[in-house]
Amino acid sequence: MTSKRPRGAYKMVVVVRGDLGLSPGKVAVQVAHAAVALAFRAEHRAPDVLEAWQAEGGRKIALGVPALADLEALERDARAKGIPTAWVDDAGLTEVEPGTRTCLGLGPALEAALDPITGALPLL
Amino acid sequence: MTSKRPRGAYKMVVVVRGDLGLSPGKVAVQVAHAAVALAFRAEHRAPDVLEAWQAEGGRKIALGVPALADLEALERDARAKGIPTAWVDDAGLTEVEPGTRTCLGLGPALEAALDPITGALPLL
Repeated sequence: MTSKRPRGAYKMVVVVRGDLGLSPGKVAVQVAHAAVALAFRAEHRAPDVLEAWQAEGGRKIALGVPALADLEALERDARAKGIPTAWVDDAGLTEVEPGTRTCLGLGPALEAALDPITGALPLL
Repeated sequence: MTSKRPRGAYKMVVVVRGDLGLSPGKVAVQVAHAAVALAFRAEHRAPDVLEAWQAEGGRKIALGVPALADLEALERDARAKGIPTAWVDDAGLTEVEPGTRTCLGLGPALEAALDPITGALPLL
């Protein structure tokens, strides 16, 4: 296939707090919560972006930050740049207090738009 | 609120292979792939189930099995019982060979239907 759009141009990024000490399974579920919320949001508000992202394989990246304040700074930056975001607030039935913000999802959006916000963060 | 439907009646389960030695971030992304695929599938094929699941908070559980053969057995069991399933085949750009089956998603479906299939599996 040929396309004007470079492969991998779109991605979704989910950034997880490291200070909560969540188990791998709990982290996975939080990331999945963010991904589903962002995907349905894109379906309603930016169906062309959803389609392009899915056509490329629906790329997702999970990154980590030390604490909630880091997520809040990322959210402000993303919001200022018009990148869709979704908070995940855990129901708190198992590992954390109810309402604890565990992660922030961003996108799907162009990699070129996301990388200035999250490009320096480490992989989970 | 009152409802005839018991709280937590619906859930989505994603079962991950333990033998691939995936990093926590990689596991999270695989689980998110399964969750998004199952959510969109439900939207098209069982919108009432999607709505009920989301109204309850979109509960998701990540479980583990030792190997691919275990996932295949779960998939046969789920298919025989009419439970929606989704395989995740990794693109293999980082930690595994291209096309490696990393996890199997099931649902969203009634907990009472899922538990006989996955209820004995350990949390990730």
